[in-house]
Amino acid sequence: MSKKIDTSSYKGVRDFYPKEMHIEKYLFDGMRKVAERYGYVEYGASPLEPAELYKAKSGEEIIHEQTYTFTDRGDREVTLRPEMTPTVARMVAGRKRDLAFPLRWYSIPNLFRYENPQRGRLREHFQLNVDIFGVTGLDADVEIISVASDTLKQFGATTADYSILINSRKIFQDLCEHFNISTEQQYILSKIIDKKNKVEKDLFREAVEKILLSNTDIFIGALERTKNLIELLGEKNPHIQNLVVLIEKLENVGITNVVFTPTLMRGFDYYTDIVFEIFDTNPDNRRSLFGGGRYDNLTELFSDDKVPAVGFGMGDVTLLDFLTTHNLLPEYQSEVTVMLASVKTDSSAVIHLAQTLRSAGVNVATETSDKGVGDKIKATLKLAIPFFIAVGENETTSKQYKVKNLITEQETSVSEHEIVDVLKRG
Amino acid sequence: MSKKIDTSSYKGVRDFYPKEMHIEKYLFDGMRKVAERYGYVEYGASPLEPAELYKAKSGEEIIHEQTYTFTDRGDREVTLRPEMTPTVARMVAGRKRDLAFPLRWYSIPNLFRYENPQRGRLREHFQLNVDIFGVTGLDADVEIISVASDTLKQFGATTADYSILINSRKIFQDLCEHFNISTEQQYILSKIIDKKNKVEKDLFREAVEKILLSNTDIFIGALERTKNLIELLGEKNPHIQNLVVLIEKLENVGITNVVFTPTLMRGFDYYTDIVFEIFDTNPDNRRSLFGGGRYDNLTELFSDDKVPAVGFGMGDVTLLDFLTTHNLLPEYQSEVTVMLASVKTDSSAVIHLAQTLRSAGVNVATETSDKGVGDKIKATLKLAIPFFIAVGENETTSKQYKVKNLITEQETSVSEHEIVDVLKRG
Repeated sequence: MSKKIDTSSYKGVRDFYPKEMHIEKYLFDGMRKVAERYGYVEYGASPLEPAELYKAKSGEEIIHEQTYTFTDRGDREVTLRPEMTPTVARMVAGRKRDLAFPLRWYSIPNLFRYENPQRGRLREHFQLNVDIFGVTGLDADVEIISVASDTLKQFGATTADYSILINSRKIFQDLCEHFNISTEQQYILSKIIDKKNKVEKDLFREAVEKILLSNTDIFIGALERTKNLIELLGEKNPHIQNLVVLIEKLENVGITNVVFTPTLMRGFDYYTDIVFEIFDTNPDNRRSLFGGGRYDNLTELFSDDKVPAVGFGMGDVTLLDFLTTHNLLPEYQSEVTVMLASVKTDSSAVIHLAQTLRSAGVNVATETSDKGVGDKIKATLKLAIPFFIAVGENETTSKQYKVKNLITEQETSVSEHEIVDVLKRG
Repeated sequence: MSKKIDTSSYKGVRDFYPKEMHIEKYLFDGMRKVAERYGYVEYGASPLEPAELYKAKSGEEIIHEQTYTFTDRGDREVTLRPEMTPTVARMVAGRKRDLAFPLRWYSIPNLFRYENPQRGRLREHFQLNVDIFGVTGLDADVEIISVASDTLKQFGATTADYSILINSRKIFQDLCEHFNISTEQQYILSKIIDKKNKVEKDLFREAVEKILLSNTDIFIGALERTKNLIELLGEKNPHIQNLVVLIEKLENVGITNVVFTPTLMRGFDYYTDIVFEIFDTNPDNRRSLFGGGRYDNLTELFSDDKVPAVGFGMGDVTLLDFLTTHNLLPEYQSEVTVMLASVKTDSSAVIHLAQTLRSAGVNVATETSDKGVGDKIKATLKLAIPFFIAVGENETTSKQYKVKNLITEQETSVSEHEIVDVLKRG
C-alpha cells in the first residue's frame, strides 16, 4: 500500500468517540428538556449560508478573517455560519405572515469560526440558541433569563454557582447622551467598555479619556457604582425603572442571583435594550459563560417589518468546562444493556435469544466469535455494557441463564422469560 | 435602511422550520432506537475533514468537482465530508488499540455534495450510518441487513414494501476470472454494470462486448439468470456457497424478501465481498433506497492493521420520499402541551401557574399580551399546541380552570391540582 494517511481530525475540531458523544447527547437532552418545558420548539438550518447574511452587521473584514467563507462554482459567496441569530432572523422574516406569534424557537446548531484553537475556543462548537419573537414586554426577557438559568440547574448547578449580570443598552445610551457623546463615539466607547476586564486599568482610563475628556472620572464612577449612575440619570429614568421592574419580576420567579452591571455590553451590535450574561462564581473559573439579550431590529435586514426578539446562546465547550469545574458530569454508561456471548457453540442460540430480548425492548449486543469467555467479558467491560450473559450448550439445553451484572459482580440464575425483569431491575 | 437581504437559504440546502424539524427528529429517533436495540452506540465528527481523506479512494477530479473543497489560511485543503465511511475508518484506525471489538457504531451526520439540486439529490442531506467492526463471519452481514430492514419496519413499512437485493463482489470477481478478465478491465466492467439500468440495453451490451468479445452473451446470461451463473462457476464455488448460507441465516431471523442480484455492484470502490441494496417495490417509486456491504480493507489507508467491517448508509431525503409514497408519516403536533393565556389581567397569575405545571413535568407556553382570547386561541391552533387554558380574574379568584382540548373541542373544568391529570389523559 502507498503512504498512510494521518488519523487526526482537521485542526481545531473534535471527534466524538462514543464516550464524548454520550456527554454531548447528555448536554443536548438537558437543553432540549428545559427549552420544551418553557414551550419552545426546535428548528434547524444548514451550516452553509449566503455570505451576505453576515456582511450587513459584521463588515467585509470580519467575514474574511474570522469566518470560513469561500466562493462556490456558481460564483456564490458561502459562509459556514459563525452564529445562529442571523439565520433565525432570516427564517422568521421569510415566513412572517404564516407564523403564529409569540414564536418560541430553539436550536442546537454547530457554529464555525476561523481562529487559533485554544481552551474554550475551537473552530467548531455547538450552541444552544433559544429565542422568543413577537413580545415587546419584559415578560419575554424574564422568560429567556429563566430558561438560561434553569438550563444550568438542569445539570445540577445551584444558584451559588453562577451570577446573572444584567444591563440595558438604553441605560448606556442615556449615560452617553448625558455627556453629549455622538452615536459614533458611543459605539467606540461600548467596545472599549466591553474589553474593560481584558486590559490594564490605566489603559482603560486612557481610552475612555479620549472621548469623555474632563468627565472621565464621573463617567467611570457611574459605570462602577450603581448609586452614582442613578444620581446622574435620575430615579425616574424610564430605562432604569424598566431594569428595576425586571429585577422584581425575576425575583418573583425565584431568580435572585442577579447583579446590575452597567459595564456589561455583550459583543454583538444587534442588541437594543436588556442584555445579560451568566458568570461562573467558582474562584478557579471566574468568567463569563454565556449570555443574550433583546434585539428588536434584526429582521429589518430582510423587510420593513420589525419583529421584537429576545434570546441567548449557550456554547457546549464552555458548558462542559463549567460542569467539569463543578464536578457535575455523569459517569459514562453505554446505551446498550446486555452482551450475549456464545460459548463453544455456533451463533444461532445467541441470535435467537437476542431477538427475543430486543422484542421486549432491551438493547442487546452479541459476541459470537470463537474467543474465550474471559476475553468476551473484558471487551464488554471496556464497552461499558453493564450486563453479560454467556450462552453455551448448558444454557441452550436447560433454558436457564446466568445474568452477570459486571458493575456489582452479582450473578442471577433465571429462566429465559425472567431475563428482562433482571435487566430492568438493574 | 439599506437594501434588504433575501430570506432564501443557500441553494440546495434546507431550512427546517419546526414542522420539518419535527419530521427529521421523528426519523432520527426511529433510527437511533433500532440501532441501539442492536447494541450500536452513537459517535460523531465534524463535517470539516482534511481533503486527503477522500483522495486515496476517490481521485483528485471527484474531490474538486463533486465535493466542497477549499484551502484554509493555514494552506490546508479542507473538504466538507461527502460520506461518513472514511471518517469512521479514520476514527477506528486512530484508536484501534484502545477500542474493544466487536465495535458497533452508528451516526447520523450531515453530508455535502456539490451537485445541481434535484428530487432526492440535495447539496446537504443527513445519513444514518451503521457499522460493525471486527467481525469476519456472516453474522455481521446478517446483523447489518437486519438493522437496515428493521429501521424501515420501525417507520411502519412491511416486508411487501421493499426487496433486499444482495450480491458478492467476490462472485463477480470469480465470474470475471472465469473469462480471464484483467483487474483493470474488471473495474471498468463493474462500473458499466453499475449503470446498467440507466442506459439502453443495446448500449450496455456494446460496452460489455468491448471487454468480453465473443463471450458477451454467456457473460450477460450469467448476470441475468442465477441458474446460468451457478452452472458456470459450479455449485461448490465458495463465494456462491457463502451467499447461500447468508440467505439461510437471513431466513432464520425472519428476513425473506431477499433477491440474489448478480448485477448489484454499489458505487463505492471499498466494498470487498457481500453488498446489498434496499429497493422500493411500490410501482410509483421503483428505485434503490439505500444500501451497504462489507469493506474489510479501508483501515489500511491509515495503518497496516486491517479491521473487517460491514455497514450501510440510509439518507433522510430518500427515506422521506419512501415514507411519503407509502403514506407513513405522522401528523405534526407540537412538543408543547398547553398554552396558558392571560385574559384582561397582568401576567403574574399565568406565569405562576406555568411554573407550577412545569415543575410537574408539563411543557407549557404562555401568552400574556393584551390580544383577545379569540386571537390567542387561533395562534395556539396554528402552533399545533393541543390544550388551551384562559387565566382571568375569575380563574385566579375561584382557582377553577377550564382546560380546552383544541382538537376534540372538549372543555373540562378543574381545580389547579387536577390540571396535570387532564393534560396527561390527552
